[in-house]
Amino acid sequence: MKKITTIAFDADDTLWINEPYFREAEENFCKLFEPNFSRDETAKLLFDIEIKNLPYNGYGVKNFIISAVEVVCQLYDSEIQTELLNKTLKLGRDLLTKTNEKINGVEVVLKKLQENYRLVLITKGDLIDQTRKINQSGLKDYFDHIEIVSYKTCDDYRDLLRKINCKNENFAMVGNSLKSDILPVLELDSYAIHIPFPVTWEHEQHHEDIIHPKFISIEKITDLLEIF
Amino acid sequence: MKKITTIAFDADDTLWINEPYFREAEENFCKLFEPNFSRDETAKLLFDIEIKNLPYNGYGVKNFIISAVEVVCQLYDSEIQTELLNKTLKLGRDLLTKTNEKINGVEVVLKKLQENYRLVLITKGDLIDQTRKINQSGLKDYFDHIEIVSYKTCDDYRDLLRKINCKNENFAMVGNSLKSDILPVLELDSYAIHIPFPVTWEHEQHHEDIIHPKFISIEKITDLLEIF
Repeated sequence: MKKITTIAFDADDTLWINEPYFREAEENFCKLFEPNFSRDETAKLLFDIEIKNLPYNGYGVKNFIISAVEVVCQLYDSEIQTELLNKTLKLGRDLLTKTNEKINGVEVVLKKLQENYRLVLITKGDLIDQTRKINQSGLKDYFDHIEIVSYKTCDDYRDLLRKINCKNENFAMVGNSLKSDILPVLELDSYAIHIPFPVTWEHEQHHEDIIHPKFISIEKITDLLEIF
Repeated sequence: MKKITTIAFDADDTLWINEPYFREAEENFCKLFEPNFSRDETAKLLFDIEIKNLPYNGYGVKNFIISAVEVVCQLYDSEIQTELLNKTLKLGRDLLTKTNEKINGVEVVLKKLQENYRLVLITKGDLIDQTRKINQSGLKDYFDHIEIVSYKTCDDYRDLLRKINCKNENFAMVGNSLKSDILPVLELDSYAIHIPFPVTWEHEQHHEDIIHPKFISIEKITDLLEIF
């Protein structure tokens, strides 16, 4: 991989913990309606409404909040206790103000790689919330370029490469989502390094094995220092 | 203004109509609670909650939706009719799927200016919603660079100029908001061209006269062709 000049990182669940906070919020949301409605029933309804709303709301916390309110409307078709709705809004607000814990070793890795590579951050989600997490992480200055996008398709990576003036063969992407961080990047014939994270949103899951000469899977972010 | 190489445009209420749709949604929202709660009472509560939530939700339609739900919780402290909440969510959804009407003459102007200037778009708001409006407008290809931001401060314009590799003295910004499109740009000693729009959100208003050698105010977007 001697040709690599630029290493791009996903943010949520690659640089810092994120998905477990969403899972916790969802579980707490489902609990609000027990025993009248089962955990599984509410969870399924929330997932379905989130997927339906994705094209309008985008990925991230606001799709969760707006979809959760819609779930409440569907569960109670006549009257809603204000307390339930307030608790729902609070679960969203707590996510919007959460301090995301950094992944072990991330700062050591970025500091080291920065010496020899241009580092880029590309993250999918809500503009103001992703910006907040980036600022709060203290990792911002390691990155030469930061891009917040609505989707991570091949076209989005193509746009990024054009913006940062980088050839496909000089680019490597690091992330936890096979669907968003790995597959579109391999399609562009760039390098893709997968660091699995224990929790992945159902919608982001990809269940087939990936066999590709430019694909590498590692256990933890500090393993990057064995590669670069 | 012979040194100008790059002209940047604001989008909402500069290239296409936007604020009147928000005003309409707000009025319809307030009507939902009449006569129990007066229009003015609900409007004030909504404004106050939107401003409180701005740092977390950012500008744009999702702050309106989430804040409106919060208003409903405050108006009814014990029980909420599901129908009221469904209607509230629908007002938000309608905004998220609205076709924004273009400002008269905008396409002629962009087509002409594109011949001699690099055109840039910088818009504040929700990432996925602003992207949707840009795509829907059919104006995307006139712009060499598109930037969607959470804020339009001096620092944000500085970042933009760095990204597009443009010197302050070669840059002109066109927009309807004195606070977001004009004042921070003049502070950078770039040119700023104001095209007032009849409707401006209270939070975006600026009431002092601006006297500055690089400030120009015009009536309509087609007047740009008299300047450039």
